[in-house]
Amino acid sequence: MKDRPIGIFDSGVGGLTVFDAISRAYPSESLVYFGDTGRYPYGVRSKGVIVEFSRQIAGFLEDQGCKFIVLACNSASALALEEVASSASVEVIGVIEPGAAAAVAATLSGRVGVIGTEATINSDAYTRALQNLAPRIDVIARPCPLFVALAEEGFAGKPATRSVAEEYLAPFKDDGIDTLVLGCTHYPLLKRDIAAVMGPSVQLVDSATAVAHAVGSRLEERNHHRRSDAHGEYKFYVSDTPGRFQTVGRRFLGREVAPVEVVDLETLHEFGELARTGRRV
Amino acid sequence: MKDRPIGIFDSGVGGLTVFDAISRAYPSESLVYFGDTGRYPYGVRSKGVIVEFSRQIAGFLEDQGCKFIVLACNSASALALEEVASSASVEVIGVIEPGAAAAVAATLSGRVGVIGTEATINSDAYTRALQNLAPRIDVIARPCPLFVALAEEGFAGKPATRSVAEEYLAPFKDDGIDTLVLGCTHYPLLKRDIAAVMGPSVQLVDSATAVAHAVGSRLEERNHHRRSDAHGEYKFYVSDTPGRFQTVGRRFLGREVAPVEVVDLETLHEFGELARTGRRV
Repeated sequence: MKDRPIGIFDSGVGGLTVFDAISRAYPSESLVYFGDTGRYPYGVRSKGVIVEFSRQIAGFLEDQGCKFIVLACNSASALALEEVASSASVEVIGVIEPGAAAAVAATLSGRVGVIGTEATINSDAYTRALQNLAPRIDVIARPCPLFVALAEEGFAGKPATRSVAEEYLAPFKDDGIDTLVLGCTHYPLLKRDIAAVMGPSVQLVDSATAVAHAVGSRLEERNHHRRSDAHGEYKFYVSDTPGRFQTVGRRFLGREVAPVEVVDLETLHEFGELARTGRRV
Repeated sequence: MKDRPIGIFDSGVGGLTVFDAISRAYPSESLVYFGDTGRYPYGVRSKGVIVEFSRQIAGFLEDQGCKFIVLACNSASALALEEVASSASVEVIGVIEPGAAAAVAATLSGRVGVIGTEATINSDAYTRALQNLAPRIDVIARPCPLFVALAEEGFAGKPATRSVAEEYLAPFKDDGIDTLVLGCTHYPLLKRDIAAVMGPSVQLVDSATAVAHAVGSRLEERNHHRRSDAHGEYKFYVSDTPGRFQTVGRRFLGREVAPVEVVDLETLHEFGELARTGRRV
């Protein structure tokens, strides 16, 4: 079990911020990453569709021998964690709880802002997770849908991004928050733009590091950590456009994303059948 | 045959600009619209995936009794028209050729710009279509990927959109073009922003009207027009999030989008099998 890889998946490249945090914290672990580039973004889709896509990919990662699965996509974590966990035979964790715990640790005023995709914000998953940890916390959550496209297209730091950030984030300034959760794995790429609008009195919480620690302690508890001086092996799978994934992925990871292999949607569909019915088509 | 509806499909809401043009030009025709909202946008995907999705939807529209199918999505028209036409039993037309013909009619200088998604621009479909009609024409084509998200999110006329338009379109100003093809059905929503950057000397070509005329003359040739004083019936199908489709669709169509029904991805997958193998799974 120990030598088996950790599976990480996201709708696209965003989860590479989580991949990066895990690989830095636990360099001996092997990692398998899946980006559903044939069907991203998830943040505009319904629960039913997000559950189906997530189950397919979790099935694929299990088939790759993963000892543990991380839903590194906030929309999937918010809407499909329970369903994926119930049909998977290995442990599955999402990014919402670790992010919420980091925010609770960071806030002094007890007023926390959350930004994410429409799917994530409408699900109220962060509000539930935050109030579960600290019942008296005030949570103000708002969707920032354009941030995903701006991060994907390399618009970090450009005037258009600042202008969109102003439009989305201005209302938070009247809310008296001291902490803002970046509830989408794409948003850390726009951290500077977001910080410039929010000012120095608001702390930004990026869940990637918190997720890496959560993964580490789960592996520790189960004694599933790979104990080795050798560096882990990395593998990347996508459902479409591997070249684009490498180009945009480099922007997220700050280094080469390789090797990348394509898994076609037909194959994923079969893993979905398997998760739903217990048998292959 | 005459009373059967015309099928129109797009990756999402963008094709409603084409729906609108056809319904205005031929009010007695019944129309069935399909928006693949469970898997949009197409403009970031590969040919293989776009062909598969397009075949599935064409299969569904045929099953609905459509007498004619319009690929109202530029990315699908650029990359999947031939494949969809070869597996469909009714006539299929795309939006590229009518748009190119309108641009050739409009240009005086013989220098034409084209903007569209990455998939459309990288396919060179507009360049081929334009040079097919007018071999000596100069074509300068550039992708404007963020325009889709900006149109979807209701950012027409906002400072961020102007700023993105400046960034994408400034290089065209040195190219000496007198005509710019809006090669994506989302772009007409940003017409004012685009016109403000390009100035009055550049004519914008929106293919929706050209497509409506092309549909009309094909129906005329085959004597398939519905001759009636009664208004045609309209039906909308989507693969996900019908509520969002109605909200965003209203922005595109300028009136109510109803009734909307959901066709699940499992059903579409079956139509794909049928198109590929000739039999249902």
